[in-house]
Formats: sequence, structure tokens, C-alpha cells
Amino acid sequence: MQGLMMHQPLLIAGLLRHAARWHGTTEIVSRLPEGGLHRTSYAEAYARAQQLANALSRLGIKEGDRIGTLAWNTHRHFELYYGISGRGAVCHTINPRLFAEQLVFIINHAQDRLLFFDITFLPLVEKLAPLCPTVESWILMTGPEHLPTDSKLPNLRDYESLLAAEAPAYEWPALDENMASSLCYTSGTTDQPKGVLYSHRSTLLHAYAIASPDCFNCGARDVLLPVVPMFHVNAWGIPYLAPMLGAKLVMPGPGLDAASLYELFESEQVTFSAGVPTIWFGLLQYMREGQRQFRTLRKMIIGGAACPPALLKAFADELGVEIRHAWGMSETSPLGTVATLKATQTALPADQQFAALASQGRSIFGIDMEIVGDDSLPLPHDGEAFGDLLVRGPFVAADYFGALAPGQLTAGGWFRTGDVATIDPEGFMRITDRSKDVIKSGGEWISSIELENQAMAHPAVAEAAVIGVPHPKWSERPLLIVVRRPGRDVSAAELLDFYDGKVAAWWKPDAVEFVAQLPHTATGKLLKTQLRKDFAGYELG
Amino acid sequence: MQGLMMHQPLLIAGLLRHAARWHGTTEIVSRLPEGGLHRTSYAEAYARAQQLANALSRLGIKEGDRIGTLAWNTHRHFELYYGISGRGAVCHTINPRLFAEQLVFIINHAQDRLLFFDITFLPLVEKLAPLCPTVESWILMTGPEHLPTDSKLPNLRDYESLLAAEAPAYEWPALDENMASSLCYTSGTTDQPKGVLYSHRSTLLHAYAIASPDCFNCGARDVLLPVVPMFHVNAWGIPYLAPMLGAKLVMPGPGLDAASLYELFESEQVTFSAGVPTIWFGLLQYMREGQRQFRTLRKMIIGGAACPPALLKAFADELGVEIRHAWGMSETSPLGTVATLKATQTALPADQQFAALASQGRSIFGIDMEIVGDDSLPLPHDGEAFGDLLVRGPFVAADYFGALAPGQLTAGGWFRTGDVATIDPEGFMRITDRSKDVIKSGGEWISSIELENQAMAHPAVAEAAVIGVPHPKWSERPLLIVVRRPGRDVSAAELLDFYDGKVAAWWKPDAVEFVAQLPHTATGKLLKTQLRKDFAGYELG
Repeated sequence: MQGLMMHQPLLIAGLLRHAARWHGTTEIVSRLPEGGLHRTSYAEAYARAQQLANALSRLGIKEGDRIGTLAWNTHRHFELYYGISGRGAVCHTINPRLFAEQLVFIINHAQDRLLFFDITFLPLVEKLAPLCPTVESWILMTGPEHLPTDSKLPNLRDYESLLAAEAPAYEWPALDENMASSLCYTSGTTDQPKGVLYSHRSTLLHAYAIASPDCFNCGARDVLLPVVPMFHVNAWGIPYLAPMLGAKLVMPGPGLDAASLYELFESEQVTFSAGVPTIWFGLLQYMREGQRQFRTLRKMIIGGAACPPALLKAFADELGVEIRHAWGMSETSPLGTVATLKATQTALPADQQFAALASQGRSIFGIDMEIVGDDSLPLPHDGEAFGDLLVRGPFVAADYFGALAPGQLTAGGWFRTGDVATIDPEGFMRITDRSKDVIKSGGEWISSIELENQAMAHPAVAEAAVIGVPHPKWSERPLLIVVRRPGRDVSAAELLDFYDGKVAAWWKPDAVEFVAQLPHTATGKLLKTQLRKDFAGYELG
Repeated sequence: MQGLMMHQPLLIAGLLRHAARWHGTTEIVSRLPEGGLHRTSYAEAYARAQQLANALSRLGIKEGDRIGTLAWNTHRHFELYYGISGRGAVCHTINPRLFAEQLVFIINHAQDRLLFFDITFLPLVEKLAPLCPTVESWILMTGPEHLPTDSKLPNLRDYESLLAAEAPAYEWPALDENMASSLCYTSGTTDQPKGVLYSHRSTLLHAYAIASPDCFNCGARDVLLPVVPMFHVNAWGIPYLAPMLGAKLVMPGPGLDAASLYELFESEQVTFSAGVPTIWFGLLQYMREGQRQFRTLRKMIIGGAACPPALLKAFADELGVEIRHAWGMSETSPLGTVATLKATQTALPADQQFAALASQGRSIFGIDMEIVGDDSLPLPHDGEAFGDLLVRGPFVAADYFGALAPGQLTAGGWFRTGDVATIDPEGFMRITDRSKDVIKSGGEWISSIELENQAMAHPAVAEAAVIGVPHPKWSERPLLIVVRRPGRDVSAAELLDFYDGKVAAWWKPDAVEFVAQLPHTATGKLLKTQLRKDFAGYELG
């Protein structure tokens, strides 16, 4: 028997419609790539999203077509999120920090029909265009006054003229909520980039989930500044969350240095921000140097990489900002876990509370998780056992666009994250390694990250990597590869001795190699695939 | 083109599964109708909900069957919410405060196959049973030691023995999320009760929506005590919200007097509660009498009837508790609007802030609303124009069970709330009347509630009602009907003069009648249908 409630699909256009109707004068403030601070409102952004939807129709865009963006966080990128998805097309945000070959691969794989880009990326786009035959028109996200006259880009237009030609009224189609709304490619360390294809439903459920007090904890009186880029997993959902709440949105554009961010935090009375550890490290240093304080900033989310505990402590103790450590990935929309205390933990000693807050956190409703061993059976949640981390839920990816990577789901329907983790009895998860990097020695697992962290604590080590190399008896054994700090010396034996008492004896690497530098991906991750190639055939003494 | 996210239905069993998995030791504390305080946990409640689901199968219950409950807020009622809905049947909560004839109507109309009841209601149930032929078995929500030996109830069982016979493992069916999950009849002032049939989807979306900081603002460190009964619109969603968050749940059972509530608030360290104004009035008086303070209680939701502004102020100023004023109805799951400030309002003078907080509040995402006039066209949101309040959204009713009341939806798909309201420029809604009670004079509307409130401010008036009576020229004009305070006298002319300067001159009632008492419904609402009958044919001088 069916319930008798209204059948209203969860649609992205509904978020901005809500904001325009009930928070019409609430501001969206943007620092523009072409210079200057721009102020608009939800009512105006909604009108412009409708102009954009009309423009897309005029350009022949149909439901399901992919539209690319190479853009910073601005009100225009925000309008693209709504105008494109709202009209049933797919907003394909592209990370401009990738290598040019990856960008070409992604644009061609997605078959983007239009490409909207910020003026910053004009030189890049001019290089890409000849290699991207599916793109019918390149649209510069600015006014006509900034349009270059000598560009060879096919059908180059400016965004403002495109909008100005259209009426600010558009009847949003009553889409199936499971239709694709946006597309974001992850840059793997091993394979070609893979596209996660979000739906309207997954996007709205994720926005509901992250609003809650144990997650982003935001309401209409908050002012949200996403430092995390809109080309990086939809800026962690903040461009959808803010209109849902009616919260003011501050868009930093290309100004992601500490001084620019601090200026915006203060001038726009920002209360909430979100970004990766690197950004917050830079900001902390800037705050300390100038003995500065925040007037309004109180809440931050840190994610995208493991957060050093010292950073959490410094922001809380020195600056009065609660940083919450979160974990997720493109395939989880991205919020999976957030570290906030449970009621029983508030009575624990400070160091135990802090250990929980420094973990990757606990599952939010909408994400279930499990750790399994080589036999695919669940491992105990004892904080000790570590295994492949699996997740599932209504905002978790089931596949990739174009199905480049089948087999990502288990027989039970779980998504294999590619991370290795522990889960403690209170449900707090800790990533210990990537599945591809864990070293399998005699049927037991050794965490490469743990060995790297220990080595990097040595004063003479600038950077360290640990990979598994074949071993006749143990199948694999760890090899430590080290870059020494300039002017510092240290021997292999000294480094191995340094592990004593810090890890189990059988975890200790079998050998140490010194190198001048380690290979990295475009986004700065250690490229262990390259290391494994470099050390292929390595023989343990 | 479809998105590539997991197809996971939003199901009620998933809420308790989440709580059991990630907050297994978090407590559910109940004051039992048979006496004593009972403590259990989400893990245990989940096991028992599975035992219950097995027991229902053994009793031949199929998907879509209705199961009635006549019960207080306890862990057992909580288990019924999950065991019944989780297994695909419909949890039909019945308000024991209704007249016996209404209860019989409701049980027969729903065709309840089983009826679970608390020991408090044994005498009531024994009267109802002979008139409720669809009920195959009556199940007393207690242990075997409390089972009466001389009862004539058909197939009388006790709840604990029913559960004890079953295994605590049950494979929840993968239901369609639009399937019916629970049923709650509203007691109208005019018609027979009408059943609102919630779905799994509407229930989960509502739970997501109310969690947010601008709504109930609760997380895992909160302790939730719903004073609002589980037979009253699912206790406003709190039995679903608490497991979603992993928050401790405190169930007051039948102890809804101020002393019992205060004791539980303190002993269980409750941080959040929700209920109707009458309850909070009683509690305020009790707190003042004993010069008491709350140690942990900080957040309350008040709804179900308009909240006098003085009550909001008293709780904030004297007791340090933020009461949020909310509006909703059975047909909106029930949360529709909540009064919390927007950012721009925080700079307003205190009295203007307070006016917003004392209104019915602003729309939460998931509820859209509109006010329309006699011509069905939208009225301005200027805080002055008032019209029929319409709502729509994914947790708003589209119809009633058994379709007793067709035509509740407009051609545009909006639900007619039956309330008359204004909406101000910031989106804050204020109920001014019920649609059936508003007086239509010469094409303009007069609020009967506004006239009643003004009359009741007169020191000689105990209670007042205003109804429209036919008028040859103006179509309708207001008639004021008054119950004088014992020992106080006041004339019709004095009461009419009392309106001067408080309402528009043309709003002033045309006549006054004095009566000994006014008619009320079982739940205490003024019964204007009866008044209209009593004064049928009334001729204005």
C-alpha cells in the first residue's frame, strides 16, 4: 500500500527557488577573477539561472548533455550549477590544476558540448581547444568588455551577453530525481580520471545530511565561505547547502592565499569555512605572524587529506575556531564521516576526546561503512583490526560515467573506497593506508603510511615513501625510500633503529634507499605507482 | 540520462539500524505506565524490533496491514514504530483522548488487525473491543505478570511474551520508499476524523529537515524528551530523529505533569524537549513556585497551538531555555515553519526580533507555502494581506486514507491547510484564523481570532467566540459570544467600545450575546460548528 504524501521529486532547481522565495535579499559576494568584489542576491541569482537555462535551450542543449566548467568559486559558477542542472543537463566541473593531457582526456570523455571558463584560464583553454572537438562553443565567464578580440577559440562568447539576451523566467522541467545533475572526475594515482555522475536526489539528500549540527552545523544566520573549489566535488556541497538554509555565501574566486581569505572572512563576517589542510596551515601561519584574530569565524571543516592534530588544536586554542575533521571522497558526494564527540565521550579525559576528534570521524546518517579483510568478511570494530573500507548509501556512487572502472562494488553492493581503515568501538574510523599501498607480509598487513609517518618524524628526513617489494618467503616486505633534508646526513641503519619501540618489530622495513626526490601527481599526492616502477625488480639483500 | 549513484530507498528500519550499529549503547529511558523507570539501548531496541517483526509475521500480518496503538511514549511504543513499519505494515497511532465514538470510528475505518495498548487504557479498550470487529488480537504492552486473568478481550496477549518467543534477527524487506509506514487521524472540528498516511520517504525527509540548526538543532550529544505524544503526529518526528542522530531518548510515559517532567529533565540530563503551550505553561508555573532552574535543558519546541509571547520570554529570561515557536499540522508531518531569526534581523531592535520569534515562523526547506484570496490568486507577502494558507512539499499529504475528503488539493497541487494567514516580507507567517471561521464581509475578510483575542483581553471576559452570521447587505457580519468571568459584569456596549482603536471600525462585531459556556472538542478546541448551529437564524438588529 502506497502512502498518500505528495510525489515531489528532489530537484536542484528547487533549492535556489526556495532561497529566492524566502531569502531573496540574502547576499552572494564574489571576488572576481577579472578583479573586484561583486555582490548579488539569491533573487537575482535565481533570475540569472533562468536566463542561463533559456540561453542553453537557445544553444540547442538537451537533457543529459554535458556542459563543462573551468572556473573558480564565483556567483557565475554558482548560477551555472543551477541553470545547467535545473534544465536537465549535466554540470561538468573540471579541475584546472590537472595536467593538460588529463584535461583533454576528461573533456573528450565527457563529450562536453559547451565549456564555460574564467579569464584566468584563457591561455590554458586556447591550448586545449584544438584537442577538444566536441566543444561547440567556449564561453568566457565575464562581460563583453573583457572578451579578447584576437582569440581563435571556436564560437567564443562572453557569459554576460549570453544572459542579457534572455528572459529571466523559465519553467523548470519536472525531472526524474534520479537524473544526472553533475559530473566530477577524480584524478586517481593509477588509472585515467574517472567521472562520478551525481543525481538530483543524491545531491539533495547529501545537502540535508550535511546541514545537521553534528556535520556542518549551519543555518540562515551563518555566512559560508567555501575555500574548497567548486571544481572539487561540488565544493563539498556548500553551493547546494547555502540556498537550502538561506545562508549568505561568500565566494573567494582565485584569491586563496591567506591574506585574501582573511580579508574576506573579516569584511564579510564569515562564520563558516571549509577546505584542505594546506590552506588552513597557511592561514594559521598568517594569523600568528600578524597576531590576528577572527571577529566572526567560528566553524571550519577540514578534509581532503588527513589533518595533523596540531592544526586542530591550534585553531581551537589560539583562534577560537572549532575545526571539524571530515573524511569523504568524490564517490561519497563527498561527506562520509565527521569527527564530533558522542555524549559519553564528553566525560573522557581531554587526550581521549582529542584522539576521537583527530580521527576521520563517525558515520553520518546516509552513509554506512564496514571494514573487511582479504576474505571479504567484516573485521571487528576494535580500533586495531584494519581492512578495506567499504561504504554504501543513497549518495554513494554505484559506478563511473562511461563505466571505465567496473568491479568497484562488492557482491553485497558496497563501494570499495580503496582506503584501508580501522573502526573503533564507538564507531570512529581511522584511515591507515590506501588499499594499493598496504604491504601484505606473510598474510598480515603493514600500513605504509604509518611507516612513512614514523620516518618523517626523524629530523634528517625531508620526505619518505614506503612500498612493498617482492619477497620469496613473506610475499612482500617494506622498502623505505627517503629524501634527506639539505645538509643533513643519516644512514640506513640509523633510520631502521629509529623504528624501535614505535612499530611492531616485523613491520620494520627490510631496506632503505636514498633518492634526490620523490614523484608526485598533479595534485601533490605521492605517486607510488611510479616508485613501484622505479624499484621493479628490486632485490632485498 | 540517469545519475550513477546507489539506488537506496529511504526506509524507516534504516534509521534504527544506523543507531544500533553506530550508537548501540546510547540509552532509551522510559517511565512506564505500570510504574518504574526502564532503561534500554538502541542495540537492544533494534533486536526487539526484529523480534516484533517476526511476531507480526507469525500472527499473519502482511505488508500494508494496519496495526493500531493506544499508548504513551515508551520504549515499547518506539519498538512498535520500527517493527511495524520496518516490516511493511502500517503503524496506526490512535489518540486515546478522543471520544469513544471517534475511537471506534477510527479503528473500524482503518481496519486495524491488531491493537497494542498500554495498561492505562485497559478499561477503555474493554469498552471499545465489542465494537471493533476487525481487531483479531489485543496486545497489552507489558509483561505477563500484569496480564488480567478475567478479561474478555479477544486473543489478549502481553507484549513481552509475544517478543520472547521470537529470534532477534529479521531481514527487513527492501520496500518501495513510497509505501505507507504510519497512519494518524486528525480530529477535525467539523467532520469525522481523517487519516494521514505517511510514507517511509516522507518520514525520512522530514527527519532530515527537522535536524538542522534552524529547526530542532539536535545532535548526538543531545538528550531528547518528547512531551508531545507518539499518538500525535508521530511525536513531531522525534522518535525518527533521535536514532538518525544517535541521541539519547527519554520517554515520559503517562507522567506529563510538571513535577514528573522536571524530575526526568534533571535526572536524565535532558537538553531538548517539545510540546504544546499548555504543558509549558504548567511547567513554568512549577519552576517559578519552587524557584527551580534547569541544569541541562536549553532547547524547546512549542507548537500545536499559538504560543503566547510572554511564554517565550519567560523561558528565555527566567530559565535560560530557548523556546522556538513552530507551526505545522498532521498533514505536514508536522513541521512546516519554525520561527528563528535571519541574519539581517539580528541587528533589529529587540521588540522587532521578538515579533518575528513570536510568529509562526518561516518555511523550512521541503515546505513551500503561499497565501491566496477568494480568487485563488497569490496575495502580497506584506504582513498585511491575509488569505488561505496553502502548502506543498515531499512531506505534505496529498490525500486522506480512504479518501474521505477529496478536494483538499488545489488545481496547482497545493494542500489547503484550512488556516488563514499573513506572510511578511521576510517570509514569516502568522496564522490569523481558520478558513471556516473567517468572516467575509462585503468581499473583505475579518479575522474571528483577532476579535476573540481582543475581547478576551477585557478583564470581565472568561472566554469569547466570534462567528459570522448572515447579513442582507454585507453577506456576513461578526457576532461576539461571551462567557463572563464569575462575579464580573459587563455590557454589550462596553465590550464593543473596548474594540475602539484596536481593530478597524468595520471589523467591530454587530452584536454581542452572553452565554454560560462555550462548546469544545475532545481536544479542547472551540467548537464553532456547534455555535453556528446554536445561532442559526440569528438576526442582527
